Amino acid sequence: MRQASHRLTVATRGRGLVEITAEISGWVAEQRLATGLLTLYCRHTSASLLIQENADPDVRADLEAFFARIAPEEPGRYVHDAEGPDDMPSHIRAALTQTQLSIPILSGRLALGTWQGIYLFEHRRAPHRRELVLHVIGE
Amino acid sequence: MRQASHRLTVATRGRGLVEITAEISGWVAEQRLATGLLTLYCRHTSASLLIQENADPDVRADLEAFFARIAPEEPGRYVHDAEGPDDMPSHIRAALTQTQLSIPILSGRLALGTWQGIYLFEHRRAPHRRELVLHVIGE
Amino acid sequence: MRQASHRLTVATRGRGLVEITAEISGWVAEQRLATGLLTLYCRHTSASLLIQENADPDVRADLEAFFARIAPEEPGRYVHDAEGPDDMPSHIRAALTQTQLSIPILSGRLALGTWQGIYLFEHRRAPHRRELVLHVIGE
Repeated sequence: MRQASHRLTVATRGRGLVEITAEISGWVAEQRLATGLLTLYCRHTSASLLIQENADPDVRADLEAFFARIAPEEPGRYVHDAEGPDDMPSHIRAALTQTQLSIPILSGRLALGTWQGIYLFEHRRAPHRRELVLHVIGE
Repeated sequence: MRQASHRLTVATRGRGLVEITAEISGWVAEQRLATGLLTLYCRHTSASLLIQENADPDVRADLEAFFARIAPEEPGRYVHDAEGPDDMPSHIRAALTQTQLSIPILSGRLALGTWQGIYLFEHRRAPHRRELVLHVIGE
Repeated sequence: MRQASHRLTVATRGRGLVEITAEISGWVAEQRLATGLLTLYCRHTSASLLIQENADPDVRADLEAFFARIAPEEPGRYVHDAEGPDDMPSHIRAALTQTQLSIPILSGRLALGTWQGIYLFEHRRAPHRRELVLHVIGE
């Protein structure tokens, strides 16, 4: 049984989903594990992780509209606003999605479904550099 | 230290929670690990996983009503509607719940609380066959 | 490769976030693993886990207000109300947050980001004693 870990920095372009399936799958392939478990961890509280449909970009637009509706930027709505009106909605979006995802590795590949992609979900309006930690264990 | 993996297909009857605690616990018991970690992974973007109260069926009805209220089917609400009015609400429900769950194994059993059940949450109106991947590591 | 597990009981003071970063990090440090994976599991359906910003207490107040708005206590809103008006909102809050969290261990420490804290999220109005299961694997 072996482990490996890696830090991956992802540049975002402001609010929205950034697909990272290829980078993650590529690193997992290099580890040459037949069976195992990948864990992705996002080291931020205003960005998060999501498995979503990778086929139709409209899904990403609709998801964005959904989160904008349930956690709107609105003057006076939040006590915590020192970092800007998009800061507290970002923490709420992060709370409702995932800070961590684990995906089994079968026959040397991530067990993603056909239509699943792995996304980093940037919640702030401005571009950021986000750090993810990857960990695998298996053999 | 050993690993094992398994693919489990669950037939759903359309939107709602399907309890899968017995199937999952049964497979884990067969692996004969005293201590370890089980990971469940759902290979879909319109079905997901949830730990919920297993005692009162009303909880499931109330959960369903909650999700129908925050992510309603509504003509014109979503851009992504090629697969039907229940498709985009399904992706939102999946984003808000879990694609993956990990549960420690202690003394040969899943460390579930007394009132916890493991559920597959079908988000589409029509019945589907959903594929889960199970992975354990331990000894 | 080794494993360890632990049961941690956390006393809550009713609804709200209880920071548990120090207890968790302390137990992980005692395990003396250079690289590994920590899994936290919450054995309840009306309390859950959350990674959130640990710097500004206003974030916790705003999170609480958000969940009170989307899953309000309201007479007649829920079928399941035998355990009180805060019971079904508690299950909804638990469904929207995490029952389980896994965090990689790098260089002997949890890979938490600078502003991240680990919280137990109590959803009931009354104080409770909540049981968490901790599991590590690594070397």
